[in-house]
Amino acid sequence: MGSAKIITAAMLAIGDELLSGRTKDKNIGHLADMLFLAGIDLKEVRIVGDEEEMIVEALNALRSRYDYVFTSGGIGPTHDDITADAVAKAFGVPCTHDTDAMELLGAMYARRGVEFNEARQRMARMPVGARHIPNSVSTAPGFIIGNVHVMAGVPQVFVAMLDVLLPTLETGAPVLSRSVASPFGEGDIGSRLSAIQQAHPETSIGSYPRYDGNRFSTEIVIRSRNEAPAAAAERDVLAMIADIAAAKAAG
Amino acid sequence: MGSAKIITAAMLAIGDELLSGRTKDKNIGHLADMLFLAGIDLKEVRIVGDEEEMIVEALNALRSRYDYVFTSGGIGPTHDDITADAVAKAFGVPCTHDTDAMELLGAMYARRGVEFNEARQRMARMPVGARHIPNSVSTAPGFIIGNVHVMAGVPQVFVAMLDVLLPTLETGAPVLSRSVASPFGEGDIGSRLSAIQQAHPETSIGSYPRYDGNRFSTEIVIRSRNEAPAAAAERDVLAMIADIAAAKAAG
Repeated sequence: MGSAKIITAAMLAIGDELLSGRTKDKNIGHLADMLFLAGIDLKEVRIVGDEEEMIVEALNALRSRYDYVFTSGGIGPTHDDITADAVAKAFGVPCTHDTDAMELLGAMYARRGVEFNEARQRMARMPVGARHIPNSVSTAPGFIIGNVHVMAGVPQVFVAMLDVLLPTLETGAPVLSRSVASPFGEGDIGSRLSAIQQAHPETSIGSYPRYDGNRFSTEIVIRSRNEAPAAAAERDVLAMIADIAAAKAAG
Repeated sequence: MGSAKIITAAMLAIGDELLSGRTKDKNIGHLADMLFLAGIDLKEVRIVGDEEEMIVEALNALRSRYDYVFTSGGIGPTHDDITADAVAKAFGVPCTHDTDAMELLGAMYARRGVEFNEARQRMARMPVGARHIPNSVSTAPGFIIGNVHVMAGVPQVFVAMLDVLLPTLETGAPVLSRSVASPFGEGDIGSRLSAIQQAHPETSIGSYPRYDGNRFSTEIVIRSRNEAPAAAAERDVLAMIADIAAAKAAG
């Protein structure tokens, strides 16, 4: 259970392949799930390509505004992996081959009898002063500098790095979430739901329309950091659905 | 076939549910696919929650920088649908019940014998001066103001709106894309691929690692707006793979 403090976060997903449609991002949804469970508020996500200036600008905007920033992508061994350099530039520090990362990777490739060539050595590059994020899948570490957490784009590696990272972060009070399935579309419930939201200011009530190809239904989600207001709002939502159902049956 | 001009775009996906992990966005990947095919360069994506200030700020940053901006989400009938108001605020114009949209929706609900209540009327709200984006799925239109194209968040509706919208946009020269599957990981190909990129400056060569739970392979993608440079770079990439395979077989 975290403190009552609100902890905010942003994500920066990096990679031309996300913007060309070639790769459908999976890391944003995973990070969103994990941060929600941890009680960290994900407030903003940006996706940019492999362009240093874009990465630096986005990173500086996000790291000054939120408690934590998480990045994905661009830390592999090829020429288009420029995230380490861009992060170093954003922090105004040099990007060098990290001694510990060189040892770690050198030992791993030696064990496997694989040449630790120039490309592979690129994966040891980090901004000076960065700390490692361990990579249990493929060794090459992510890194942390300031409030920025730099992780791989390959989903299996991103997941593994985040698993190690999350328990080390400061977390806030988890948000309690109650979900009510409404068989009615937003048009039927909109006005009354708005009144329920106003009557329960300690909650945040969202409504998420679903369309099955024929008709709309709605998932109503009540969020609060406290139990009692969430329960009270949920009662009103259930009463609203019962009323609308009765009115439809009568009409 | 479009002009040789470069046309840029950004997307702003709006909705708390995307940041809490409740909904896994599908619209970003779809837009990325469609714009790539159309020859429009998607340069940046942002995701923000249902907060007016965040939407306004992101929208003003993106619309001043790119030729087109596409938004998804927040145009339904409930209290948390605030996109129309936020877009109006970003443009400094009033947000009102659009006369044509009121007629369109009023007639549709009358045909269906459904009350055109206050919540449903919210779906007719637009910034003054906006033009409609037709909605073949559920009638309530999206809208265009300036270079900003406001669409629904429900994927079926987003897809339908984009289908109508795309043929009306100015497009650039499509990017030709050639993909070469490399059985070798990025560590094996990194240095030589970097040299190939430098030798073919008219192309943009990306490498996308895949991990099957056991070993890494790579998809190498060569992009160019011209045929000859893409073909030349592809020949060099194929030669590189043959060389590495021969070296591995010999070693």
